[in-house]
Amino acid sequence: MTDVAAFSFNKLVIFGVGLIGGSLARALRERGEAEGARTVVGVGRSSASTARALELGVIDGTAALNDAAALREALSGADFVLLAAPVAQTQPLLERIAPFLDADTIVTDAGSTKSDVVAAARAALGARIGQFVPGHPIAGRESSGVDAALPDLYVNRNVVLCALPENSAEAVARVAAMWRATGAAVHEMTSQQHDRVFASVSHLPHVLSFALVEQILNSPDAALKFAFAAGGFRDFTRIAASSPEMWRDVCVANRVALLDELDAYTAVLARLRTAIEAADGAALEAVFARSRVARTEWQDQRGAAVAPSDASK
Amino acid sequence: MTDVAAFSFNKLVIFGVGLIGGSLARALRERGEAEGARTVVGVGRSSASTARALELGVIDGTAALNDAAALREALSGADFVLLAAPVAQTQPLLERIAPFLDADTIVTDAGSTKSDVVAAARAALGARIGQFVPGHPIAGRESSGVDAALPDLYVNRNVVLCALPENSAEAVARVAAMWRATGAAVHEMTSQQHDRVFASVSHLPHVLSFALVEQILNSPDAALKFAFAAGGFRDFTRIAASSPEMWRDVCVANRVALLDELDAYTAVLARLRTAIEAADGAALEAVFARSRVARTEWQDQRGAAVAPSDASK
Repeated sequence: MTDVAAFSFNKLVIFGVGLIGGSLARALRERGEAEGARTVVGVGRSSASTARALELGVIDGTAALNDAAALREALSGADFVLLAAPVAQTQPLLERIAPFLDADTIVTDAGSTKSDVVAAARAALGARIGQFVPGHPIAGRESSGVDAALPDLYVNRNVVLCALPENSAEAVARVAAMWRATGAAVHEMTSQQHDRVFASVSHLPHVLSFALVEQILNSPDAALKFAFAAGGFRDFTRIAASSPEMWRDVCVANRVALLDELDAYTAVLARLRTAIEAADGAALEAVFARSRVARTEWQDQRGAAVAPSDASK
Repeated sequence: MTDVAAFSFNKLVIFGVGLIGGSLARALRERGEAEGARTVVGVGRSSASTARALELGVIDGTAALNDAAALREALSGADFVLLAAPVAQTQPLLERIAPFLDADTIVTDAGSTKSDVVAAARAALGARIGQFVPGHPIAGRESSGVDAALPDLYVNRNVVLCALPENSAEAVARVAAMWRATGAAVHEMTSQQHDRVFASVSHLPHVLSFALVEQILNSPDAALKFAFAAGGFRDFTRIAASSPEMWRDVCVANRVALLDELDAYTAVLARLRTAIEAADGAALEAVFARSRVARTEWQDQRGAAVAPSDASK
């Protein structure tokens, strides 16, 4: 993706002013790399979260989703719309927005799955799908909500854009410039690539981690096992403390790619089971040694490069 | 287990003066809770590691394993022998030691599996098996070797003893007192319980973590996946950087219990797969929510109690 000049915007409308949306607003307004009027309007399902965002100065104004006049006013003249609500809300949100959307407003999102979001956007926007540029900022914190929003949340983090054939090169470049203005590195891949990559390195590990705790809970000596669980268990299951609602939605939204990865993983486990049963130390050591080298190289490289972030997603 | 008075010893012989054996020596000599002559002799396969231990003042003397006269001298009058070498060496080590073992010397070990160690000890010691009290200190560090040994490695850590029917109550109490003098909490369970517990909370997570890295390596888009792996992957695979040799031996030594746990885990995964394929969000959320509660409670409790340690094992 070619680089762009300094990013300017006049009005950004954010649907869902929590950690992700709030941090984008703060980054664009506080980092001083964006030019223009830089008005940010927040729209939420609950007036409490937008009121809090207003109080914190993260946004300049709010509109209620069910107030058509306010929504029309909010969207009028907007350069950008960011959807930062759970991915399952993509289609109803876009259906609600569509009637008020200016022809030159660019809509993007922050969902952690992409094929389902693209399908929802096509269903809601129809012939105007070119206005929607799918995106995924790979960033997160343990805490959520607008109070956790930070102006530097995206510094040195990755943002993946999954441009559609209908997107103009200019629209994609504008969204890329917006994320670069937050300090992020922007990458492009297809929705299918995106979903496969994150099924593998994020969604599957979450399922595997939840599954281990579930298995222990189901065993007759669960209390004894938890009592002696130590550092290995702690690291392996840290992500089993993640939001059940979010991961339920991710697993369902990305189930095609996730099942492929899960099946490939189960095949590796079956191979290891055979080696364990046969007491085949050489086969086990070969796999373990290969994994250790790859894991160590990964750790070394991410120490140096921008690419892999510390995000909790 | 009943508490005991201050711990005293005259001579401790350690086979394998690395992190585990060296830390026991340092704890007993430097923490001031042990009384008596407190002589520690180190025996190793390589003279380099025992020479280094001597140089660091961790031990007072050394003997080479293949020098019968020196070994006889080292074991003469010893209160305690600690085996802190890889578990696969238990039987040959005990066979080597047996001819020189005083009738009142207590032998214990630090192996991370117990049923196989007990079988090896029975084979090597025969009618003298009562002198062997199986143990497992749950402690470790990322670094290994005698240079990494610390006097406080065992403070607030757990040590599991798997007393045999042939052990005298006094012998078990003496080993427990030795570990308590290092600052550890001592627990008793059977070898079978021990192996099941650690298969579940330690050995299985290691296999699952190695398997994820192996699966990604085997996939056509491995480079892209590693490039976007973030915090979830990092935590989940931290233990995939562990020693391939050690985990090969553990998997083989504890394969009966490990296969039981692996099969139970695979059954949970199959259940989750069904829910994912059916887009059954409610079933997924029920499992994820249950796991999150259990993992969060575990974290909260280990913050307060001595029990679960920060050990890397």
